[in-house]
Amino acid sequence: MTRAQGPPLATPDRAMLPGRRGGPALDVPSLVARARTWDPRAVGRLISMVENAGPELREVAAALAPHTGRAQVIGLTGPPGVGKSTTTTALVRSLRARDRRVGVLAVDPSSPFSGGALLGDRVRMQAHSGDRDVYIRSMATRGRLGGLAPATPQALRVLDAAGCDIVLVETVGGGQSELEIASLADTTLVLMAPGMGDGIQAAKAGILEVADIFVVNKADREGADQTVGDLRAMLSLGGRHAEPGAWRPPIIKTVASQEGDSGIDEVLDRLDEHRAWLASSGEGHRRRTDHVRREIEAIAIAGLRERLGNVHWSATLSSLAASVVAGETNPYRAADDLLGAL
Amino acid sequence: MTRAQGPPLATPDRAMLPGRRGGPALDVPSLVARARTWDPRAVGRLISMVENAGPELREVAAALAPHTGRAQVIGLTGPPGVGKSTTTTALVRSLRARDRRVGVLAVDPSSPFSGGALLGDRVRMQAHSGDRDVYIRSMATRGRLGGLAPATPQALRVLDAAGCDIVLVETVGGGQSELEIASLADTTLVLMAPGMGDGIQAAKAGILEVADIFVVNKADREGADQTVGDLRAMLSLGGRHAEPGAWRPPIIKTVASQEGDSGIDEVLDRLDEHRAWLASSGEGHRRRTDHVRREIEAIAIAGLRERLGNVHWSATLSSLAASVVAGETNPYRAADDLLGAL
Repeated sequence: MTRAQGPPLATPDRAMLPGRRGGPALDVPSLVARARTWDPRAVGRLISMVENAGPELREVAAALAPHTGRAQVIGLTGPPGVGKSTTTTALVRSLRARDRRVGVLAVDPSSPFSGGALLGDRVRMQAHSGDRDVYIRSMATRGRLGGLAPATPQALRVLDAAGCDIVLVETVGGGQSELEIASLADTTLVLMAPGMGDGIQAAKAGILEVADIFVVNKADREGADQTVGDLRAMLSLGGRHAEPGAWRPPIIKTVASQEGDSGIDEVLDRLDEHRAWLASSGEGHRRRTDHVRREIEAIAIAGLRERLGNVHWSATLSSLAASVVAGETNPYRAADDLLGAL
Repeated sequence: MTRAQGPPLATPDRAMLPGRRGGPALDVPSLVARARTWDPRAVGRLISMVENAGPELREVAAALAPHTGRAQVIGLTGPPGVGKSTTTTALVRSLRARDRRVGVLAVDPSSPFSGGALLGDRVRMQAHSGDRDVYIRSMATRGRLGGLAPATPQALRVLDAAGCDIVLVETVGGGQSELEIASLADTTLVLMAPGMGDGIQAAKAGILEVADIFVVNKADREGADQTVGDLRAMLSLGGRHAEPGAWRPPIIKTVASQEGDSGIDEVLDRLDEHRAWLASSGEGHRRRTDHVRREIEAIAIAGLRERLGNVHWSATLSSLAASVVAGETNPYRAADDLLGAL
């Protein structure tokens, strides 16, 4: 899966899709049917459709809906340099050893996976061991702040419908992405590494609240116990983890490297425990409903923005703005007029 | 104006306002009338009203509208450490020497001015020289990314209506604030300092496009000419500045310090030139209309969000979200249903 293990089996989106190179074009229901048999080209095509937000987006969303809800979505975040990509690789390896089907969405611009996006091979399959049960896809990030692409929830649904047991979403920490990842993942893994005082500071600012499991990676380095102690001290300060029946985020030390991993199996055990807790506590359903609420709201507001962008409303808006500049009205009154007219 | 020159004449909002301490409460039209006579307490009270987005917000906006449009709004941004606050102080000093009435809105959380917000003295007047023609106000920033407060455009209108010739808005660079500042300023000043390679990198990412005037501050330090050269090289690459009739951003070297300033008068001359160019080219009106368009749009969308937050729509949204989680519908359909119901 890593570059050191040989070039990935690239299946560029445009080159090998049904409907190009002479084959018949597939409609959305056929693509979804194929994706559900784990056809990587159909999966890739569907993700491209939701990512491009083209005319098929709504049809894809409707066709996927009945087949979703099974996969566990795991968000993986942490400051740059903690080893997110290596850990993702190690997690995939161990999940495969447990015979789970795995999807990876890489939204970290610094990740070698999403680095691929820059090189143009947007769809890549794991090459080594002939393992076809891993699907890796990079997503374009939204703007330079590294926020998640708006299509990410739908891309997750494609992989879910295609039969993934686990979908890992890897994103860079900092900016808003660690909070955004918690708004789409069932379980959020936060990676730290020894000697990252800043990382812990960042954690205080927001990561701490969203973490379900802490991983202190590079635990063979000096300062690992200090980092674990710092995290434990912060967790002991309370917050949502202190409530009765609440999940107490475990802190796991790992060493993920190409030579071998340690601690990764414990991470998987804790992920299973967290999944069981999500189900038994009702928190899993509550989270998913909350995430979808936000998603619907975001789509509704984006729809409104889109309407405002069309020629008619754009002219209305310009004329209202000119009245405000002339001092004839004020922006609040103008906004009322605009919404009233819409 | 700086702390070294003695404590500012603090006029805490709540302590000295009309309507407290026994005096009669003033209605919005009376407050606006008083603000127009440059009564600092009325100015402060009006800014608090728009900042708190209380029930009077719309009335304040309506009462201000006929009296706005005269002040030149100057945005001042740049990476941390370039000396934005010292430069603001120096600009205010020179503007006063030219007998201009000046307002300052500090939205930089690292600024000693807005630092005052944390200490509770939200309204401060310049103490030294008995100069009452400077009004300094810190604005709360929106979230940890340091974006501008949503009330900033209305706070500008308060100062504009109160008769400021110039309103300086000081914000920290990085994040989105340097782009946001360009979406409310007539003229955007971007500060750099020698030896800030990263600063120039940041400039490439966005500041360059929004700058009307570059100031290389701390120009007595080594590397100032290099920084000027780097900026000049980037400007020569084209962009909007290369079009015929376009404004070519000047690059001015300054040394702003408590011991004395150099280059600041040239900055003021260029600001006057830019103001004249904005008027003669029509760009000034185009900018203001564009800014107000965005403002109206933001208010309309915030209004929609607010509606979504009320009990009735919140319940509708939850029930739609539950249907999506159950696979009975999809988020796009749900968003349509929601907008239809609204």
